Amino acid sequence: MDSLDNLAKLFARFPGIGERQSRRFVYFLLAADEQYRSSLAKQITSLRAHIVQCPSCYVYFEGAPKSMCSVCANPKVNLKSLLVIEKDADYLSVKKTKLFDGRMFLFGGLVPIVEKDTRNNIRIDELISIIKNRATSEGLEEVVLGFSLTPQGAHTDQYVREQLAKAWADSPVRISSLGRGLSTGTEIEYSDSETLKSALQNRK
Amino acid sequence: MDSLDNLAKLFARFPGIGERQSRRFVYFLLAADEQYRSSLAKQITSLRAHIVQCPSCYVYFEGAPKSMCSVCANPKVNLKSLLVIEKDADYLSVKKTKLFDGRMFLFGGLVPIVEKDTRNNIRIDELISIIKNRATSEGLEEVVLGFSLTPQGAHTDQYVREQLAKAWADSPVRISSLGRGLSTGTEIEYSDSETLKSALQNRK
Amino acid sequence: MDSLDNLAKLFARFPGIGERQSRRFVYFLLAADEQYRSSLAKQITSLRAHIVQCPSCYVYFEGAPKSMCSVCANPKVNLKSLLVIEKDADYLSVKKTKLFDGRMFLFGGLVPIVEKDTRNNIRIDELISIIKNRATSEGLEEVVLGFSLTPQGAHTDQYVREQLAKAWADSPVRISSLGRGLSTGTEIEYSDSETLKSALQNRK
Amino acid sequence: MDSLDNLAKLFARFPGIGERQSRRFVYFLLAADEQYRSSLAKQITSLRAHIVQCPSCYVYFEGAPKSMCSVCANPKVNLKSLLVIEKDADYLSVKKTKLFDGRMFLFGGLVPIVEKDTRNNIRIDELISIIKNRATSEGLEEVVLGFSLTPQGAHTDQYVREQLAKAWADSPVRISSLGRGLSTGTEIEYSDSETLKSALQNRK
Repeated sequence: MDSLDNLAKLFARFPGIGERQSRRFVYFLLAADEQYRSSLAKQITSLRAHIVQCPSCYVYFEGAPKSMCSVCANPKVNLKSLLVIEKDADYLSVKKTKLFDGRMFLFGGLVPIVEKDTRNNIRIDELISIIKNRATSEGLEEVVLGFSLTPQGAHTDQYVREQLAKAWADSPVRISSLGRGLSTGTEIEYSDSETLKSALQNRK
Repeated sequence: MDSLDNLAKLFARFPGIGERQSRRFVYFLLAADEQYRSSLAKQITSLRAHIVQCPSCYVYFEGAPKSMCSVCANPKVNLKSLLVIEKDADYLSVKKTKLFDGRMFLFGGLVPIVEKDTRNNIRIDELISIIKNRATSEGLEEVVLGFSLTPQGAHTDQYVREQLAKAWADSPVRISSLGRGLSTGTEIEYSDSETLKSALQNRK
Repeated sequence: MDSLDNLAKLFARFPGIGERQSRRFVYFLLAADEQYRSSLAKQITSLRAHIVQCPSCYVYFEGAPKSMCSVCANPKVNLKSLLVIEKDADYLSVKKTKLFDGRMFLFGGLVPIVEKDTRNNIRIDELISIIKNRATSEGLEEVVLGFSLTPQGAHTDQYVREQLAKAWADSPVRISSLGRGLSTGTEIEYSDSETLKSALQNRK
Repeated sequence: MDSLDNLAKLFARFPGIGERQSRRFVYFLLAADEQYRSSLAKQITSLRAHIVQCPSCYVYFEGAPKSMCSVCANPKVNLKSLLVIEKDADYLSVKKTKLFDGRMFLFGGLVPIVEKDTRNNIRIDELISIIKNRATSEGLEEVVLGFSLTPQGAHTDQYVREQLAKAWADSPVRISSLGRGLSTGTEIEYSDSETLKSALQNRK
C-alpha cells in the first residue's frame, strides 16, 4: 500500500465518502497547487487550536478556551427554555431562524433503534444533570426535544423522555416536542394521519 | 396507424403515463384473457352510471343521482367548519384519518403560478357562493384551506384568500390554513425557517 | 366495495401500476368526456379482433387471422439468422434500427433466477421445435440470443443454451449472443471487466 | 468568517462536495481524535514528495522522481498499441482488468462541447508528439481512443481524431475507438440504434 492508498483510506473515513470518492479527493489534491495543499494541511492541524466546544451546549465554535458560545453567553438569553437538538448543523439551522430565544443543547447523536449499548456517543447523563441544575438554580421550566421526525429521531425522543422520567420522578420541568404539521413540500394526498391531525389542530 | 397505436394513444392521456408505458398497457391487454378485457371495457362504459358527483362537495362516489356523499349527508356533520381541498384523493386521505368532523369542498385543482386564465378548472365561484350561502343559512364560521405545501399549493391558498376578500369584504367567516410543523421524515438540519418556526410554536 | 373500487382494482393489474395510480386513472376517467370513455372501452373490446399474433415469431400486430407479421412474411428475409428476443417492445426496437435482416422470435419472458417452474410463460419448446424445423427445411444457420444484459437476461441466455444443447446434441446451428461493449452513457471508470474486455476486442 | 468556515471553504473545492457536506467534514474532524487529524495533515503535506507523475503516461503513482509507472516501465509492454484514456481512475480500471498489454496515455480531461478554449487542461500537444515519436522510434501502430461514451466523451473522441489528422496528414498509425455493444445492465427495449447495431455485429 502506497501513500496514495494511505491518504485515500483516511479520506474514506469522512462522513458519506466511499472508496471511490476518497481516491478522487487524492487525485484532486495531487493536481491542486502546492499552496492549496499546504493551506489545507495547516488548517486541519490548527483546527482545534481555534475551535472550542461550548461547555454549556457542546457546540463547536471559534473562541477562547472555556468560553461559552454566543447563544449561551448572551445575557438576554431566555433561561426558561432549553432546546435539545442532535448536532452542530441543527444548531446552525435553528440559530439562523432567530426564532428561539433560549439555550440549546447538542445531544451528540440519535439513539439507534436496535443497538443495546446506547450511551456511547450521546450526552444523556450530561443532559439530565444540566436540567436538574438549571431547574434549581436558573429557573429552567421547559425542555423542548427537537429531534428529526425520522424513526431514529422519534426513538430518541422517547428514550430521552424515559430517561428523564427515571432520573427525576416528579420533575417540575415540562418536556415538549417540536410540533407536527405540513412542512415545505408536503402533499395532502400522501400525508400520514399524525401529520394531518396536527395540521388540522394547528391551523391558523 | 393501426388499432394497437390507437389504443396506446388513448392510454397515453392517462395521468402520468408516457408513450412507452401506454404501449405496455396495450401489450398487457393483448396477453390478458378475454374476460378481463371485457370486464374492464364494461366497467369503463358504465362508470358514470354508478358514480355521481356530490352536489355539495364535488367528490365522486357511488350513489343515486343528485344524492350527497356520506360526509355531506351525515346529519351529525359539523356545519361550522368547511375544509377546502384540491381533489378526490385528498378527500379520501382526510376521511381516513377520521379527524375532521366538518364538510369538505373539492376545489378541483391548483392555481398555476404563471398562467393567466386560472378559472378554467377550479371552482372558485362555486366556493364563494357556498361560503356566502352557508354563512347565512347554516352557521358556517370557518373555512380551512387544505392545499399541499408546494409552490402551487401555496399560490392557490393565497389566490383563494384574495378572491374571498374581494367577493365578500367584511365576511364574518374566518379563513385559516393547515398548520405547519415537522412532518414525517423531516430533518431539522434541512428544515426551512417557516417550518422550524411553526414547529417551535406548536410544540407540545 | 363500489364500482369505483372495482375499476381501480382492474387498473391495478396493469404493469407498473400501484393502488394509488390506479385510483388516479379512475378519477381521470370520471372527469374525462363521455366520448373518450366510450372510445377507450370500444377499442379495448375490439382489440383482439384486429390484432393477431404472428404464428412464426409471436409478435402482436394488426392483420388478418393466421397471417404472418411484416418481418416474417417478407420474401427477402434472411432465413439463415434468427434473433431471439424477450418481448414485443424489443421487436419494435430492433425493427426500428433496420439493421437485422433475419426473422425474430419472441421468447415471451425471462427465466427467473430463483423460481423452479420456469416453463410457464416462456416459449422454450416452441423455440426448440422452430430451430429444428428451420435448420432442416429453411437453411437456418445461426440463432442470436438477444436478451437484456441484466442478471435475469444473462440467466435466460444460459438457460436457452442449456436447453438447446440438451434437446439437440450435435446441432449444426451456431448459437451466439449479442456483443458487449460500451453502450451510450457508459463511463470507463465504472465499467466492469467484461465490458472493457469486449470494448477493447471490438475496437474499430 | 472564522477558522471553521475557512476550512469548510477549502473542502468545498473538493470534487463533488457542496457547502453542506464540507461543513460536515469540519465537524467530523473536530470530533475526530488528534492523531487522525495530524496524520491526515501530514499525508496531505507530503503527498507530492512520494507521488510522482509518470513522464510517459502522466499517471500519478508512488515512485522515485522521473521514474516511469509499472505499466510504462514493463519491458514486456506491447509498444504497438497505445490506449488514450481520460484520467487516473480510468487507468486503474483498465489495469485491473489485465486485458490490455500496451501503454496508456492520460489525456487529462474531456473536451467541453460548448467552450472555445479547449487546450487548457488536456494534453493534445503531448499526445500528438508522443504518437509521432513512437511511430518512428518504437513501432507504435495503433492508438485506441478510450473515452467514456457520454456526449463529452464522444466529442473528445472526434476532437482527437481531427487534431491528429491535422497534425499528421498521412499518418501510418491506425486510430480506433473502443467497441460498442450491450454493457452490464443494458436493456434491449431502451437501447439506441448505434448500440444495437454494434451488439449485432459483435455477436459471438
